[in-house]
Amino acid sequence: MTIEYKGTNFAGWQVQPDKRTVQGEIENSLLKIFGEEIKIHGSGRTDAGVHALGQTAHFALEKSLFDRKFNQKNSSSKNNNLKKRDSSLLSPFIVAINSVLPDDIKILKVKKVNDKFHARYDVKEKIYLYKMECLPRPSPLLTGLVGTCKFSLDVKKMQEGATYLIGEHDFTSFSSAKTGVTDFVRTVNYIKIKKASSTVIFEISGNGFLYNMVRIIVGTLVNVGIYKLEPKEIKTILDGKARSLAGKTTSASGLYLKKVKY
Amino acid sequence: MTIEYKGTNFAGWQVQPDKRTVQGEIENSLLKIFGEEIKIHGSGRTDAGVHALGQTAHFALEKSLFDRKFNQKNSSSKNNNLKKRDSSLLSPFIVAINSVLPDDIKILKVKKVNDKFHARYDVKEKIYLYKMECLPRPSPLLTGLVGTCKFSLDVKKMQEGATYLIGEHDFTSFSSAKTGVTDFVRTVNYIKIKKASSTVIFEISGNGFLYNMVRIIVGTLVNVGIYKLEPKEIKTILDGKARSLAGKTTSASGLYLKKVKY
Repeated sequence: MTIEYKGTNFAGWQVQPDKRTVQGEIENSLLKIFGEEIKIHGSGRTDAGVHALGQTAHFALEKSLFDRKFNQKNSSSKNNNLKKRDSSLLSPFIVAINSVLPDDIKILKVKKVNDKFHARYDVKEKIYLYKMECLPRPSPLLTGLVGTCKFSLDVKKMQEGATYLIGEHDFTSFSSAKTGVTDFVRTVNYIKIKKASSTVIFEISGNGFLYNMVRIIVGTLVNVGIYKLEPKEIKTILDGKARSLAGKTTSASGLYLKKVKY
Repeated sequence: MTIEYKGTNFAGWQVQPDKRTVQGEIENSLLKIFGEEIKIHGSGRTDAGVHALGQTAHFALEKSLFDRKFNQKNSSSKNNNLKKRDSSLLSPFIVAINSVLPDDIKILKVKKVNDKFHARYDVKEKIYLYKMECLPRPSPLLTGLVGTCKFSLDVKKMQEGATYLIGEHDFTSFSSAKTGVTDFVRTVNYIKIKKASSTVIFEISGNGFLYNMVRIIVGTLVNVGIYKLEPKEIKTILDGKARSLAGKTTSASGLYLKKVKY
């Protein structure tokens, strides 16, 4: 499944007792339309307030009506019409689940994958956007949908600083403490920064991201953009391998999981 | 004051006990920066969930520092520099009040008016926008910021129907019951309808609006846009002077008070 959501009113992706979560709402909706408890597996967690334009998750159906229909279609032939008939079954599923999901979650696409597919382990690339409003006081209508920066940002300087982050590096300096993670090496494919009037949009692609990594990268690049850091100091921070060297973790409200590639 | 706000998390404009209201938040902020209780008078109420791009309100200051500073400046001279110095005092006020207001309210402008000015009684024209997403399932990121319509709308037909509403009419059919109102005659100056992909924007200008009037006009025009009504039936509804003849009251989330003119 490819999923869009507005993170504002969720305690993040992952199911937590007595909290409203994206995973929890989707699992509730699957229970409603299939009549059975189905666990979904996301490409990764997103924190409270973080949005998604293209989060992904997989789930397995064994006994449901949906799956049985699917198997019947799949087992009968291998011709070109098969794909058409498959997608004709997926469309009613999308209509059904969206009709029971709350307004702040929408299933965009669904496709059948092989039994070995895993939405988290098989990720090849993740792309995040960070939207920042650079005004002393952004529009109230953008509340929850952007991060903020009171000063104008020098995009050219930030882009120069960002070049030091491209490639495979130990990103210890750019991650918050999180239990269980021992390998801090990740590959950043690109960082694109665009400015349109008071809005600055960062697009960051990588093979995977550490906890808070995008938000700390943005927070550190902002320091370059307001001339608090020289672009080359990004390399010093990276080499120093200590969270304290990097900038602030920017607000969750500006972060969007744009796309997950397999 | 000219005020922008996102109505989603407010129980509307008007102060109510134990509820979060726009008026209440602004009065709290004035108390914080001036140290005294100041009542503000809006151009009119907006309901829970309704947004404003340019709501207006006035208030009177007698003893505050702000006013004393103002009086000093005003009393000294009448030359052209006066206006400059006036606005230089208003700017710190905007910075101060916006720094204590919550993120979903922003004071855009403030100017000194004469003692007889009243933000409600002196209104000459009000302009509202209604934003509608015409998709079976709008983007979750637009939650609270648009009204919805599952079907595509025929803008040409709606524009034709809207012509019957232009001018001075008894708008009884297009208002919800509200105590105290006896005069249902209002003047609609224009209704413009624009469509861009799945978004339809209605812009309605009038000398004043009855309770729910914009939302009922939009709900009725939508019925024309989906061919449930003929454009000319708008006249029949208007002439019938009964709320039951008109369409549904559309959701508050699509309504924006764009501008108030004096």
